[in-house]
Amino acid sequence: MAISWENLDTLASFKKLQSLKGAVSVAKELSGEKAAERVASCSVPMAAGLVYNYAAKQVDEKILGVLAELSQEAQLVEKFEELYNGAVVNTGEKRLVLHQLTRGQLGKDVTADGVNKREFYINEQKRIAEFADKVHDGRIANAAGEKFTTVVQIGIGGSDLGPRAMYLALENWAKAEGTFKMEAKFISNVDPDDAASVLKSLDLAHSLFILVSKSGTTLETLTNESFVKDALKKAGLNPAKHMIAVTSETSPLAHNPDYLAAFYMDDYIGGRYSSTSGVGGAVLSLAFGPNVFAEFLDGAAAMDKTATNKDILKNPSLLDALIGIYERNVQEYPSTAVLPYSQALSRFPAHLQQLDMESNGKSVNRFGKPVSYVTGPVIFGEPGTNGQHSFYQLLHQGTNIIPLQFIAFKENQTGTDVVIEDSTSQKKLCANVVAQIMAFACGKKDDDPNKSFAGERPSSIIYGDRLTPKVLGALLAHFENKVMFQGFAWNINSFDQEGVQLGKKLAKKVLAHDTDGALKAYSDLLNI
Amino acid sequence: MAISWENLDTLASFKKLQSLKGAVSVAKELSGEKAAERVASCSVPMAAGLVYNYAAKQVDEKILGVLAELSQEAQLVEKFEELYNGAVVNTGEKRLVLHQLTRGQLGKDVTADGVNKREFYINEQKRIAEFADKVHDGRIANAAGEKFTTVVQIGIGGSDLGPRAMYLALENWAKAEGTFKMEAKFISNVDPDDAASVLKSLDLAHSLFILVSKSGTTLETLTNESFVKDALKKAGLNPAKHMIAVTSETSPLAHNPDYLAAFYMDDYIGGRYSSTSGVGGAVLSLAFGPNVFAEFLDGAAAMDKTATNKDILKNPSLLDALIGIYERNVQEYPSTAVLPYSQALSRFPAHLQQLDMESNGKSVNRFGKPVSYVTGPVIFGEPGTNGQHSFYQLLHQGTNIIPLQFIAFKENQTGTDVVIEDSTSQKKLCANVVAQIMAFACGKKDDDPNKSFAGERPSSIIYGDRLTPKVLGALLAHFENKVMFQGFAWNINSFDQEGVQLGKKLAKKVLAHDTDGALKAYSDLLNI
Repeated sequence: MAISWENLDTLASFKKLQSLKGAVSVAKELSGEKAAERVASCSVPMAAGLVYNYAAKQVDEKILGVLAELSQEAQLVEKFEELYNGAVVNTGEKRLVLHQLTRGQLGKDVTADGVNKREFYINEQKRIAEFADKVHDGRIANAAGEKFTTVVQIGIGGSDLGPRAMYLALENWAKAEGTFKMEAKFISNVDPDDAASVLKSLDLAHSLFILVSKSGTTLETLTNESFVKDALKKAGLNPAKHMIAVTSETSPLAHNPDYLAAFYMDDYIGGRYSSTSGVGGAVLSLAFGPNVFAEFLDGAAAMDKTATNKDILKNPSLLDALIGIYERNVQEYPSTAVLPYSQALSRFPAHLQQLDMESNGKSVNRFGKPVSYVTGPVIFGEPGTNGQHSFYQLLHQGTNIIPLQFIAFKENQTGTDVVIEDSTSQKKLCANVVAQIMAFACGKKDDDPNKSFAGERPSSIIYGDRLTPKVLGALLAHFENKVMFQGFAWNINSFDQEGVQLGKKLAKKVLAHDTDGALKAYSDLLNI
Repeated sequence: MAISWENLDTLASFKKLQSLKGAVSVAKELSGEKAAERVASCSVPMAAGLVYNYAAKQVDEKILGVLAELSQEAQLVEKFEELYNGAVVNTGEKRLVLHQLTRGQLGKDVTADGVNKREFYINEQKRIAEFADKVHDGRIANAAGEKFTTVVQIGIGGSDLGPRAMYLALENWAKAEGTFKMEAKFISNVDPDDAASVLKSLDLAHSLFILVSKSGTTLETLTNESFVKDALKKAGLNPAKHMIAVTSETSPLAHNPDYLAAFYMDDYIGGRYSSTSGVGGAVLSLAFGPNVFAEFLDGAAAMDKTATNKDILKNPSLLDALIGIYERNVQEYPSTAVLPYSQALSRFPAHLQQLDMESNGKSVNRFGKPVSYVTGPVIFGEPGTNGQHSFYQLLHQGTNIIPLQFIAFKENQTGTDVVIEDSTSQKKLCANVVAQIMAFACGKKDDDPNKSFAGERPSSIIYGDRLTPKVLGALLAHFENKVMFQGFAWNINSFDQEGVQLGKKLAKKVLAHDTDGALKAYSDLLNI
C-alpha cells in the first residue's frame, strides 16, 4: 500500500475524534460498579513483563474505535514499517532513521554507505564489548599497569541525558546483582564549574574518559575535552591513553591517534535516540559489563516488536501515542507529567523531556508547511513520592488539567527494605501510586471547597516486577516509539532539530564581538 | 488603609490589562533603533548586586502603567505589609506567615505562642551555629571521639528540595573559598532504594543525620529514619548519638532523648519557604559553617526589603509577578521555564517548581470560592547550556509560547577555567544565554520554513557577578516574594496545600487493605 503523508486535521477520523471532546468521565468510570472490571481489562502487555494500563484515561470503546480508525487512516504502523525498512523518514536532513537496528531487525536488510547497517551496529557493539572486557580484566590499563576504576562520559544533550538516566536507573541494580564494574560520571555543561567539580572528585590516574560527539564539533564537548586534557597533562598523564571516542566515522575524532580507541555510530541515529547505540553502549558496558548492555538491548528489541502490531490494543506504544493525541488535540491539555515511583528513574523524566520535546516541538509539517494544530506538549516530572510533597498540589487542585504518566515496580532494586507499621517501604511506595491514580481520577467532594478535589485528572500507569536492564530497555523503546507514532500523526519530522541552530549561530557572533543593537547591549550587561 | 481581598477579574485595572492582549512585539522592540536603549533601561537592581532585566518581555510603558495600577488596586504591597506584620494571611490553616522573620524584620514585632517570633528564630539560629561549631571543632564527636565528616538530611518536599538545591548551589563555591566543612547527602523518597543507596555510600561512624519534619509525623521521613536507625544499630552505633531533629516544639521529635539535639521551627514557616529556617539552617551551617548561612540570610533579607517598595520599577519581585500575571491571564501562556546558566543551580528549578506550583496551584480563592481565571502555571527547567541540546527545540519552534526565566553570572564559582578559541568556558556560557534571549525574541526568517524562527518568545534575565551565599539568598527570596505577590493578585491562599491530603488518606486505606472497587483492583495489579 502506498504511504500518504497527510496533516492530522485532514483526516476524517480526526474530525470524528473532535466530536468526542469531553465524552468520558474517569471519575464515573472508576467509581461505578464496573470500575474494578475496567481496571483489570485496560491492561496491555508490553515487553519484559511490563504492562501499560489505561483504565484512568478519558477513553471508552467508542473513542478507542475512532483512535483505531485514526491509526489506520494515518497509516501509523505502515509508516513505522517504512522507517525500519530504511526509508528517508528524516526528510529535513534527508536521512534514514535506524536506531531500532542497534537492537534488532524488524524488516528488510538496510544498506547505507555501502554496508549492511545492522551488521555495522552489531560489529561496533562487539568492539565495545571486547574493549570493556579488556578494561575490566586489566589488559587495557593505565601507564602504571593499574586498572581503570572510573569512566567519565563527556557529552551533552542526547550524549548525556539518555546515558546518564540509564546509568542511574541500573546503578543500584548492578551493585545488588554483583555486576557493577566501574563508577560512571558525566561532564556536560560548558559551565566550567561542571568539569572542574567532576575532575576534582576523580582519581585521574584511574579514570577513563569517553568523548561523545557524532559530528566531533559540538562546542561544549570539545571545550570540556580540552578541560580534561589540561587536567590530565597537569597530573603527568597522557590524554591519549585515558580517552576514547564515540563518534561518526566522518568526524575529526575518528581514526585519530589522540584516542585510545574509537567506536562508531552514524547520521541515522539521532542524539536523543542514541542510548542503544555506542553513545549509551560504551559507558554502560564499561560500568556494568557488556552482558548487562546486551540485556538492555534485548528489552528494547522486544518492545520494538510490539510496535509493529496494527491492533492498537496489542500495541501499547501506539495506544499511548493515540491517547496522547486525543489529550493534546481534542482535550487541549498543554503538558504531561512523567512520574516514576522509583528513585532509580530520577533522571528518566529529563531524558523523556528531551526525547519528546525535541522530537515533536515543531510547527511545520514534513513538507515545511505550517500546521494548524498543536504538536508536542511540555513534558516534566520528578520521582514519586517526592513529587507528592511538591508540585502535585497543582496537579490535584490547579486550574489546568495535566495528564499523568505513572511508572511503578512491585519490587525494589537493592533488596534492602524495612517493615514499619506492618508494611515495607516498597509497599508504601506502591500504595502511594495507586492512591494517587484514584485521587486524581475520582477526586472527593468536601463541604470545605478548599478541601474538595474535582478529579477527572487522567493518568496511565506502566508497571512491572522490578527495574532490570531488560525492563529499562523496553521502557525506553516504548517512549521512543510513542513519540515516533505521535510525530507521524502530526505529520511532522520527529528526527531533526533545526530549532537549536539559531542560538548556536548567535552565540558565535557574540563570542566574535560581531554584534550590534540589542545583542551588543545584552553582551555588555554580562561583560562579554 | 483597610485591606480588601478581591478576585483578579473584579479589578478595573485587570479589565484594562485584558484589552492589551498581544499589544507588544518583542521582536520589534529588540530589533529597532531603540533596541539597545531598551535593553539598558529595562534593568531593575535587586539585592546583593543582582539585576532583573525585562527588556525581552512583552511589555511597554502602557502595559507597565496598567500593571502599576493593578498593583495599587489589588494592594499588593499593602498585603505584604499585613503579612510581615503578623496578620493571619494563611486563612485556610489560620496561621501567620513568617518566613521573612527568619532573616530580618521588615515591620512591627510579631508575637505568637507567647514569644517574639524574630527573637525565637534568631535564638534557634544561634543554637544551630553553636552546635555546628562544636561539630566542626570536635567538641561534639562520635563515640570514638572522632569528628563527624558527613551530614545527611532526611526529609521530603520542602525539607528536601530547597535545602538540597541550596547545598548544590554553594558546594563548589565553599570548596573554592575554603569554607567547606562537611559533605551533605539527602534521603527523601520512601522508595527503599533511596535510603539503601545513600547509606551504602556513607562512612556511618562519621555521619550525622538530620531528621527534618515540622509535624514529626511525615510518613516518608519517619520510615527513612527507621531505615537509618536500623543501619546504625547493625553497625554497632547508637542512633541517639548520630541524629538531630529539626521540627516544631509540639512534635514528638521535640525534647526527645532519641536525638542528640533538636532545633525548632513553627507552623508559621511553610515547608517550601523553610530554607532560611532551621530546615535549611542546620544542614547548610554544618556543611559550610554558620557564617556562610548568615550571609545567605543577609541576601534574603536585603531582597525582602526591595519587596516593600510600592514603585513596581523599584520592586523587581513585584514587577516579575505582575508581568507573570499578564503572561498567564492575558496572554494565556500555561507554563514557564526556569533556565539557570549555572550548573550549581541544577536543582534550583526543582525547588521553584515546588515553591510556585504548590503555592499557587489552587482553584478557589482565599474565601473558598472557585475562581474563574487560571492561577499558577506549570514550572519546569534545566540548566543551560544543557537544555539547549534538549527541550529548547520546542521552546523555539513548538506550537505554544512558553515564557522564559534566564539566570546567569559573569564569573564562575571554582575559579578554574580554560581558554579555547580565544574565550573561556564562562564567556561561552554567557554568550549562549545572550544569544538565546535574542533568538527567542527576534527569531529569524528563512526560505526553508523548517529553519524559520517565529520569535516573539518573551524572556527575562536575572544576572549577577558570581553565585555567592548572599546572591543565592537574594535569588531565593526574589522568587518567594514573586510567588506571594501573584497569590495576592489571584486572591488565593499561597500558604496551604490541601491538595496533598486526599492521596495520603487513600494510601493509608490501601496499606490497611481497606479498599474495594477500582482502588482494590489497582492494588491487586501491584500485589499490595
